[in-house]
Amino acid sequence: MTQNIYDNPRFYEGYSRLNRSVQGLDGAPEWPAIRALLPLVADKKVLDLGCGYGWFSRWAAEQGAASVLGLDVSTKMLAHAEASTQDSRIRYTLADLETLTVATASVDLAYSSLAFHYIKDLQSLLSAVHAALVPGGHLVFSIEHPIYMAPRQPGFIEDDQGRKSWPLDSYQHEGPRVTHWLSDGVVKQHRTLGTLLNMLIGTGFTVDHVNEWGPSDEDLKALPTLADERERPMMLIVAASR
Amino acid sequence: MTQNIYDNPRFYEGYSRLNRSVQGLDGAPEWPAIRALLPLVADKKVLDLGCGYGWFSRWAAEQGAASVLGLDVSTKMLAHAEASTQDSRIRYTLADLETLTVATASVDLAYSSLAFHYIKDLQSLLSAVHAALVPGGHLVFSIEHPIYMAPRQPGFIEDDQGRKSWPLDSYQHEGPRVTHWLSDGVVKQHRTLGTLLNMLIGTGFTVDHVNEWGPSDEDLKALPTLADERERPMMLIVAASR
Repeated sequence: MTQNIYDNPRFYEGYSRLNRSVQGLDGAPEWPAIRALLPLVADKKVLDLGCGYGWFSRWAAEQGAASVLGLDVSTKMLAHAEASTQDSRIRYTLADLETLTVATASVDLAYSSLAFHYIKDLQSLLSAVHAALVPGGHLVFSIEHPIYMAPRQPGFIEDDQGRKSWPLDSYQHEGPRVTHWLSDGVVKQHRTLGTLLNMLIGTGFTVDHVNEWGPSDEDLKALPTLADERERPMMLIVAASR
Repeated sequence: MTQNIYDNPRFYEGYSRLNRSVQGLDGAPEWPAIRALLPLVADKKVLDLGCGYGWFSRWAAEQGAASVLGLDVSTKMLAHAEASTQDSRIRYTLADLETLTVATASVDLAYSSLAFHYIKDLQSLLSAVHAALVPGGHLVFSIEHPIYMAPRQPGFIEDDQGRKSWPLDSYQHEGPRVTHWLSDGVVKQHRTLGTLLNMLIGTGFTVDHVNEWGPSDEDLKALPTLADERERPMMLIVAASR
């Protein structure tokens, strides 16, 4: 099964302090770009893959979703999510996305935020999501960008004039990457962008939009520390449909 | 119009000595990957955008293409291409791809090798190609990878242990890049991979395959100097259809 780093106390403690954990969707700078790719959610059946604290699940319910199923591998995060809602249309369930089973053609929108890069057997997950979607249904997800994941030393380097660059290497070497983010030994799965897109296409999805997220001028005004994010993309947002 | 660097004597001299110029398609390590994405060419009408010496045009004719139109902005290269064939199915024409005009629904396969990164108004070119294709027609092209084009200093750096990395920066800053390859002042147009794919999708193409080309184990056995190409992709190959 997928590494459940979110139930690691040190990781959980760090994660719980991130802007996106405290403020929810509005604390994630990429949220407006994701939201722009979402179909209308009203009266739709929504699947939230790696729902975490449930911010998106609750947002979807507020938008009038008919039902929302939030799945996560972390009991800690699900407990927090369940304590945050009274909405009977939302159901949170403990699940390993590596072995997802959802009823065929039961979902209008499958959503996932920054979870797919933890998945070893992404092909099985995408096949399960494809089967779960109704014809014409949508998959919108964010994932760590392969450029961000690939390097042996994933950190900016500075030249004499203080200009930053991202030392990319190992791009074609797909497989696990062990990093130290919030806690030691976080395992992510590097795949090239081509591999990811071809996996979607091969599964039967149509690729509708690819956003290698970077901050807008407005984003930079609000949060100048995002400037580095223009040097190399950290996140990838993909919209696809069945 | 697009910079016609190929008629620059120094550039042309250097270009004419490259493996891909001397040996043709088999001198380009990415050719097997491109070939794998091509539809059957027999009896098809083929458009070769930026045909250069005409290697692909001649290959398509050998495969039984009904007709091949090779377009290029370089009179020198077209003269060479014309001198290399007697095949009446092949026609070479001087053309600026920035202002392409081809009859509507007259082409089954549009092909381009490493030309699109010189095009400023790629949207107009893609719209013209889309209109030129028959419904179900194919566009297969290679282009310099955005990772390769983006940096201010596009060259590998080495660490203490001789391991190479590619100093990526400026990825989100789209626009011209002036490099010194074969001659000074070669102007290329950097766009993110997302921008390129979304432009295709917005034009009406379906994205069928995305190959961020890297050498196979066999490639490395034949040409060990290609090893660096595993650290970061230099080329992107895209198959799309109308």
